Amino acid sequence: MTVALHPSLESLARLVGTWTGSGHGEYPTIDPFDYDETVTFSHTGRPFLAYAQSTAHAGDGRPLHVETGYWRLARPNWAEVVIVQPTGLTEVTEGAVAAGTIELRSSAMARTPTAKEVTAVERDFAVDGDTLRYTLRMAAVGQPLGTHLVAELHRVD
Amino acid sequence: MTVALHPSLESLARLVGTWTGSGHGEYPTIDPFDYDETVTFSHTGRPFLAYAQSTAHAGDGRPLHVETGYWRLARPNWAEVVIVQPTGLTEVTEGAVAAGTIELRSSAMARTPTAKEVTAVERDFAVDGDTLRYTLRMAAVGQPLGTHLVAELHRVD
Repeated sequence: MTVALHPSLESLARLVGTWTGSGHGEYPTIDPFDYDETVTFSHTGRPFLAYAQSTAHAGDGRPLHVETGYWRLARPNWAEVVIVQPTGLTEVTEGAVAAGTIELRSSAMARTPTAKEVTAVERDFAVDGDTLRYTLRMAAVGQPLGTHLVAELHRVD
Repeated sequence: MTVALHPSLESLARLVGTWTGSGHGEYPTIDPFDYDETVTFSHTGRPFLAYAQSTAHAGDGRPLHVETGYWRLARPNWAEVVIVQPTGLTEVTEGAVAAGTIELRSSAMARTPTAKEVTAVERDFAVDGDTLRYTLRMAAVGQPLGTHLVAELHRVD
């Protein structure tokens, strides 16, 4: 049964689905790496999207990362997003939604005592038909805000 | 394929599975309500449990709440947990793991601008064989820390 998207989510409708593709990761403190990724945005008719992501190493296929969270709209052109990572990190971001682009900026980062220190995150998304591109910049472990992830995904569902 | 639980998660092993049951909600600012709930704790062999929860109104079955997050152990008797809620709330809790009990206390709460103000959460879990009981206390919308949820679930998988 297909449930209608909640009317408040209209400006995020193009995200709904499953996306796969590949990305590149780098940061001053780590060796660069390439990854394969699956992202899903799903809904149950209520006024939020459920977001889930997983990546695997492009070379040997070992699992690298997962994260999950929720997206909603404070108003049609402004998204509020909460994301958690199993390493003990929580992230509150918000930002402008325009035609095909979403620019999220962290307003609060919190973490468990053993989690890596990440103090700011910026996530830019661009949806062009069945292609989803994103970049993620972060300030972490004493480094200034800088590019960490760049990926291009394609709709598979 | 069944993957072995990561050795670091041994003291949380009894949580792994799917649980269903019912609960009661109350708070000074709302009408009391009863709910049906499903909770899952799953893993992929990595050093964390994925946690997901959903509730429905006990009377009319309408969806009430979902939340998701990750649990891991800083050491065998100490859990670190991050949870997000679609209303724009993130929660960092930690606490003691003993034989069949886990007592989580919030160390950081963060939220999006439109989320309800929740400033502290305490989650107590007790696992006795195939029964999982929990209570959730919170300080929210100007109220002191008080009981919000009490539930008893039974293992179904």
